[in-house]
Amino acid sequence: MASLPRPEAQNSYTMIRAMKWSCAEKVIARKAFEHALQQDLKAIIRQAKKMAARIEQPSDLWNLERYLTERRKEIDRQYDYRYSVLLNVFVDLIQKGRLREQDLQGLSEEKLRHIHHMAQSWRPFEL
Amino acid sequence: MASLPRPEAQNSYTMIRAMKWSCAEKVIARKAFEHALQQDLKAIIRQAKKMAARIEQPSDLWNLERYLTERRKEIDRQYDYRYSVLLNVFVDLIQKGRLREQDLQGLSEEKLRHIHHMAQSWRPFEL
Repeated sequence: MASLPRPEAQNSYTMIRAMKWSCAEKVIARKAFEHALQQDLKAIIRQAKKMAARIEQPSDLWNLERYLTERRKEIDRQYDYRYSVLLNVFVDLIQKGRLREQDLQGLSEEKLRHIHHMAQSWRPFEL
Repeated sequence: MASLPRPEAQNSYTMIRAMKWSCAEKVIARKAFEHALQQDLKAIIRQAKKMAARIEQPSDLWNLERYLTERRKEIDRQYDYRYSVLLNVFVDLIQKGRLREQDLQGLSEEKLRHIHHMAQSWRPFEL
């Protein structure tokens, strides 16, 4: 039984999945999401250019390929814009320093409370 | 029966697989093989640097990743240093302009004749 989620976590998942998003909240959420995504992509572009400029031998070439593949998969996995998981995505982005809680101002009190609580206390899932 | 290899092609495969390679021939073959491989790798490095320098948006990033993955697979497939297929590899490299017949001078007359004949007349297999 040790591997089952704790009851409060189960309740939290259920609650988050059932949350309604107003139009205004969707605009705020989309903006914060896109901002974090663009920042991540810009950082990857900078790093790829740097790695490419330093290529001297074939192993450097395949290191760059591996770096790009890993980042692409990470981006695909991390940036999941489904409202049923979006709070968890925001928590993860806050924990990774890609987003600040104040970027989400305008979401409902309930959502902000959830985000703050989760960001302080636990990792919702490995992204 | 139309899809079976022609009898002369079958004989040619069998003959090539059975060929012996002297130490001197192995040195010549390895040198030509490595030279072509290094030329290909240098061209890929040049192109990757050029593509990276021109990256402006995420799609350019994933185009670079795709280019590198395709080239890596192509290199892996094309540069197969098994003596049983090496003549076919040389024929393919000659047909693609990566190698000249004179780079293989020093191989036996029989091998050079096979290479010349195949390079002029047919593609041994898709590399």
